[in-house]
Amino acid sequence: LVSRLPQVGTTVFTQMSQLALEHDAVNLGQGFPDFACDPKLVDLVAEAMRAGHNQYAPMTGMPVLRQAIAAKIEATYGHRYDANTEITVTVGASQAIHTAILAVVHPGDEVIVIEPAYDCYAPAIALAGGVVVPVAMRFDEAGFSVPWDAVGAAVTPRTRMIVVNTPHNPTGTILRQADLDALAAIVDGTPILVLSDEVYEHMVYDGEPHASVSRHPVLAERAFVVSSFGKAFHVTGWKIGHVAAPAALMTEFRKVHQYNVFCVTAPMQHAIAAYLEDPAPWRDLPAFYQAKRDLFRAGLAGSRFTLLPSDGTYFQCVRYDAVSDQSEADFARWLTTEIKVAAIPVSAFYGQPKQLRVVRFCFAKKDETLQLALSRLGRL
Amino acid sequence: LVSRLPQVGTTVFTQMSQLALEHDAVNLGQGFPDFACDPKLVDLVAEAMRAGHNQYAPMTGMPVLRQAIAAKIEATYGHRYDANTEITVTVGASQAIHTAILAVVHPGDEVIVIEPAYDCYAPAIALAGGVVVPVAMRFDEAGFSVPWDAVGAAVTPRTRMIVVNTPHNPTGTILRQADLDALAAIVDGTPILVLSDEVYEHMVYDGEPHASVSRHPVLAERAFVVSSFGKAFHVTGWKIGHVAAPAALMTEFRKVHQYNVFCVTAPMQHAIAAYLEDPAPWRDLPAFYQAKRDLFRAGLAGSRFTLLPSDGTYFQCVRYDAVSDQSEADFARWLTTEIKVAAIPVSAFYGQPKQLRVVRFCFAKKDETLQLALSRLGRL
Ligand SMILES: CSCCC(=O)C(=O)O
Ligand SMILES: CSCCC(=O)C(=O)O
Repeated sequence: LVSRLPQVGTTVFTQMSQLALEHDAVNLGQGFPDFACDPKLVDLVAEAMRAGHNQYAPMTGMPVLRQAIAAKIEATYGHRYDANTEITVTVGASQAIHTAILAVVHPGDEVIVIEPAYDCYAPAIALAGGVVVPVAMRFDEAGFSVPWDAVGAAVTPRTRMIVVNTPHNPTGTILRQADLDALAAIVDGTPILVLSDEVYEHMVYDGEPHASVSRHPVLAERAFVVSSFGKAFHVTGWKIGHVAAPAALMTEFRKVHQYNVFCVTAPMQHAIAAYLEDPAPWRDLPAFYQAKRDLFRAGLAGSRFTLLPSDGTYFQCVRYDAVSDQSEADFARWLTTEIKVAAIPVSAFYGQPKQLRVVRFCFAKKDETLQLALSRLGRL
Repeated sequence: LVSRLPQVGTTVFTQMSQLALEHDAVNLGQGFPDFACDPKLVDLVAEAMRAGHNQYAPMTGMPVLRQAIAAKIEATYGHRYDANTEITVTVGASQAIHTAILAVVHPGDEVIVIEPAYDCYAPAIALAGGVVVPVAMRFDEAGFSVPWDAVGAAVTPRTRMIVVNTPHNPTGTILRQADLDALAAIVDGTPILVLSDEVYEHMVYDGEPHASVSRHPVLAERAFVVSSFGKAFHVTGWKIGHVAAPAALMTEFRKVHQYNVFCVTAPMQHAIAAYLEDPAPWRDLPAFYQAKRDLFRAGLAGSRFTLLPSDGTYFQCVRYDAVSDQSEADFARWLTTEIKVAAIPVSAFYGQPKQLRVVRFCFAKKDETLQLALSRLGRL
């Protein structure tokens, strides 16, 4: 049996969550909330099931949910997507990303991936027969940033797509208008597509706007823009997200989508459509998570960890070179097994692991959980 | 934009359901129940959500659910799968099929598909860079059957996989022990894998056993065996199914699965795991659907439709050559718009449509729904 993905093992998230469990560590590794979602949302799912919404949803997603998504994007980012032809509800952001890549990347096509990168892009590119062209983020005293000159230099006639991710997992950096302009300058007048992973779009801090790729006309007309209800509404296990793209791209997306999952869990779609009638949950999210970020950063401020910026996402990266000279993987394991706080090595987000001595903590946790982790980390 | 799936349009199921809606037709097209699931199942999902099971499930599926699946397969078909390494919970059967094909079919590999065939196999094979090798089912007075000699003759050194489906959609035929033996004789001693779509495993009638590929040692050791809770428990919109395969195959499956959907909706997994503690729902299913089949067949017995056998599935195929000489697609549209009963043309299940003058009705409907459809069809 020859593997189609010889380089792939079990994801670092599953590994570290398991290790955290075995060692009774506070799990700040895998990104998911340890607090309850809004009970109203649960009631809405129960209602939808009792009302009989238990059979196949439309392949593209429930119309009312697609309309709510389109309305939100237009109100927030000023871009109008047609709810019928340009929005699809997906089994979380992962399935949207996998499907978008399979739909448009042909064998031999190159896809530029900016590293560190979330781990689901490369396998989909490989399955499509494409080639990952990694470009490393700049890493200096100010933290991580995208070197657009290097991205531009990586373009070849075979480049089919550039993958961007803002707010960025794992680094917590965000793209700004100047970044979108730089990306637009690279792709304008070329057939290069953009895949924009914006699953943390509602976790941008300090009053900054989220620089959605859909804001930028040159980018929006060639981009798949992916987001996640699971992350926004603290229900990562409901597996519901969405993708927006111009109709021509969406047509190709749906060809794959309809034979991959066909559709998304119906009662969850009903519930979220109803939930979105109230704008509060989205609106309150940045402040909610910013308070957690600030709590966590304040707790580490006196420590020997060097805090990197966390302008978005629910992740906080730290340099630990004043604490240990272990490799990132070893340090993350040691933190988990000895200090009882699980973290994720940033090296896991590189095709060819680098050793920056940076690990990632997830602060999407109850304040008590964060306090407990901080008390343990404070010993270092 | 060059399409990766140029031949693909919107599925016939979506098209016919839409047409049925527009023309207020009884929808016996797309396969899904029009009756409620067990309210207990709904309560179990609500309970799981209220107990906080709303975050990522394990990538492979909840252990207790995997154990229940393994126990059921062993009790029913006598094959022991390891619940940890050989069972994965999937986003319905579709995602299992898509993922299994992408996981093991390499560019240039041939995959034998027995037609008529459910429409999701071919696109996944194309995305993997594989080649569909269609083998037509025999069609005569006795209905449809698999010509194993033709399947054997289609094997080449490039054959990577044979896809089988029992009970068979759309024809309602089932494989029997002799079919499994014939398939085993073809693949034994070769590296050919088997993908067995058994989503209607609990809808086999007249006391016949379901000839699961997992019953057959030669086949089980090289097969992905796919099934669906949505179909068994009348919740097609919950998108939950499973796949069983030997560990070496499952390792490859999970490499793709974890980057496609990562995991399956958590509260539904909890609910179904709890529901399976009672064997009644599975046990009672054949009798429940056989009564519907018999009702529907009895209603058509005096008509000018020729009933084909329906030994399994919730589908009934009929020849309509005594009613009309329209093509299948035209006849199915005419039935929907004029007679107000939607059906599916069997030609839609062929890569190169044949004209057998056969359409498929779904009888997974309330008795009243079937009666209404029969009264309309009786006019013909
Ligand atoms: C799908 S498990 C990983 C969750 C996540 O997005 C992360 O931890 O980065
Ligand atoms: C996923 S829609 C099709 C449902 C079905 O299995 C069928 O009608 O054959």
